[in-house]
Amino acid sequence: MLSEKDVTYLKQVIALALEGVEEGAGGPFGCIIVKDGKIVGKGYNRVTSDNDPTAHAEVVAIRDACKQLGTYQLDGCTLYTSCEPCPMCLGAIYWARPERVLYAATRFAAADAGFDDDFIYKEINLKDSERKIPFIHYEDEDAQEAFEYWKRLEDRKRY
Amino acid sequence: MLSEKDVTYLKQVIALALEGVEEGAGGPFGCIIVKDGKIVGKGYNRVTSDNDPTAHAEVVAIRDACKQLGTYQLDGCTLYTSCEPCPMCLGAIYWARPERVLYAATRFAAADAGFDDDFIYKEINLKDSERKIPFIHYEDEDAQEAFEYWKRLEDRKRY
Repeated sequence: MLSEKDVTYLKQVIALALEGVEEGAGGPFGCIIVKDGKIVGKGYNRVTSDNDPTAHAEVVAIRDACKQLGTYQLDGCTLYTSCEPCPMCLGAIYWARPERVLYAATRFAAADAGFDDDFIYKEINLKDSERKIPFIHYEDEDAQEAFEYWKRLEDRKRY
Repeated sequence: MLSEKDVTYLKQVIALALEGVEEGAGGPFGCIIVKDGKIVGKGYNRVTSDNDPTAHAEVVAIRDACKQLGTYQLDGCTLYTSCEPCPMCLGAIYWARPERVLYAATRFAAADAGFDDDFIYKEINLKDSERKIPFIHYEDEDAQEAFEYWKRLEDRKRY
């Protein structure tokens, strides 16, 4: 299922993960996005250096690729990442819609290195009130108003 | 469990969601982050106007708050959002670690308006190979190298 090129890119994201740590950018994670045999986006984790908890390697690379390509959709792209995406990055991937995702280390290796990925995967399936960070639902009729407005918009740009 | 102030902020995020659509920024979602009775971050969805699939209201507000506060952690903050966070935003929230999350509309209302939130919640629990976007694990010993380097780092900045 993997081509030689796939393996080459996977080796590159593993090297990128190490590079990010060596440069003090953040955690040990790297990501590359390829379209038609060309790298269109890349990045490593920059959470602590950018003061941005969302600056995981995948999010940085997705934002980079979208900027390069001038779009918010990654049709026909392959995303290579040094580690199994955390729920935030998995969500970002689904919204960007690349064709496939290849990863090297697992969420369990990440957990062993002190990262919360596996913990967050477990929290997702808990009820609001059972979560470590409590989620509280406030029922408000007005909340539907923006959705109704959106649905009536003829030129709405879906994503 | 909700104070009058909580309800006031929830009304504000609902208004912000509508404002974003009216300005053509993106989907109908708004978010405000409050610390010690003060708004420290806010935003609405900017996916289509910024060409950034990660620019959901919560991510925009988290990045804004972290910039304002000069940190990557939202200790003691409350996050108010017009709609139940999607998996990407839920992940971003866990990495930012606010104290609690209050939301108005549900993921089902979002799905009814054409947003994939509920679909992504279901995909998360599927095996790699069963997902609509295939995830492929490549076993590589080198993948652990960056983690090992990280674990040995004495001055590593955890997040």
